[in-house]
Amino acid sequence: MTAAVIVAAGQGTRMGPGVDKLFLPIGGQPLILHTWRRFETAACVNEIVLVVRDGLQPAFAELAHQHRFLKPFRCVAGGSERQDSVWNGLAALSPACDLVAIHDGARPCVTEALIAATLAAARETGAAVAAQRVTDTIKQSEDGMVISSHLDRNKLWAVQTPQTFRLEVIRRAIAEARSRGLNLTDDTAACELIGQPVRLVEGVDPNPKVTRPADVAFVEACLRSLSSR
Amino acid sequence: MTAAVIVAAGQGTRMGPGVDKLFLPIGGQPLILHTWRRFETAACVNEIVLVVRDGLQPAFAELAHQHRFLKPFRCVAGGSERQDSVWNGLAALSPACDLVAIHDGARPCVTEALIAATLAAARETGAAVAAQRVTDTIKQSEDGMVISSHLDRNKLWAVQTPQTFRLEVIRRAIAEARSRGLNLTDDTAACELIGQPVRLVEGVDPNPKVTRPADVAFVEACLRSLSSR
Repeated sequence: MTAAVIVAAGQGTRMGPGVDKLFLPIGGQPLILHTWRRFETAACVNEIVLVVRDGLQPAFAELAHQHRFLKPFRCVAGGSERQDSVWNGLAALSPACDLVAIHDGARPCVTEALIAATLAAARETGAAVAAQRVTDTIKQSEDGMVISSHLDRNKLWAVQTPQTFRLEVIRRAIAEARSRGLNLTDDTAACELIGQPVRLVEGVDPNPKVTRPADVAFVEACLRSLSSR
Repeated sequence: MTAAVIVAAGQGTRMGPGVDKLFLPIGGQPLILHTWRRFETAACVNEIVLVVRDGLQPAFAELAHQHRFLKPFRCVAGGSERQDSVWNGLAALSPACDLVAIHDGARPCVTEALIAATLAAARETGAAVAAQRVTDTIKQSEDGMVISSHLDRNKLWAVQTPQTFRLEVIRRAIAEARSRGLNLTDDTAACELIGQPVRLVEGVDPNPKVTRPADVAFVEACLRSLSSR
């Protein structure tokens, strides 16, 4: 059985004070609803766990009811850091679940093809992540003032979500991070701690995350282009 | 005296065959016109050199005439690689010019504030580049299949343009690259060859480059937001 854990507990401080970015209207509907719908309609996913800010569980249940979502879902409260939220989400999965796709609530353009491809790669390898080749020229700077080294763009990948795992792999990886007192913002980094290789799954379509106000227009355009095909 | 070299000679193969991306309509006007206008109206820039595909010089002159551009400009033919195009552009500058901002023709959202900030930093340091902190999680992969290392995002910068230099610095840097038979796609990398430090100038506003069809909607939104303030 496969599951998705949608992480929707962040504060999104880069959107400005007092803005809950997951409820920002995108094409007239809350951002999180678009993301959720992607997994609701993906045949390769059997159940969904949403990790939300404590107290918002009824609002999420109401959304599912309004939009007649039929796939089994559960809402659990997030922790203080992303890693804690993922941990709580994993704890809420059905016992029969053996593969889990962990996804950012603020990435509403993910396609079923990409979800399925990360599930297939994770079934084989244990861990897989949606990624795109970096198109920007990236430099390293030790002091934030001058360039200290040039990186070879051909070897650089921007990793996104879904980050998809055999359930026992990601549980073991995050348990290891927790036992070392580490707080990782990226689930594939936890895999490194236990020596688990992570497969890159190249995404074809844009899969942006809403982080800053300027991202909204681009995300709306991507959603329009997805729904028109 | 300060100059801008606008590199507008690329083929833009990622836009699809037969598309000259610099003449793509963006909000009803050719992409390159938006970029050019940014430098036409920037008080900190005294003259403009456009590096264009050979044969297109009359089309560019006609654009300037139609839109009543008044700042002195020259059109020169590009070379086979970006580095050659920049070299040709630098050769066409007025003798009195001592600072030059090199800019991608496909980056139409650059602000006057950013151009001026790179000019000021280059006057001081010799070389400066518009840059933004990387918001994506970036991984290195040696084989394009699995992640081989995790990079510290806090040290990563996406460099854009303008890349701005004291004229003698960038001439010396590119001459060095040419004499070594190197073909660099990024002018700051040439500075490394001659030991010239490059200052990062953090841009506040989005400064995207039109590379793929999906970029157009985002760039249009950025231009609307710039013109509305």
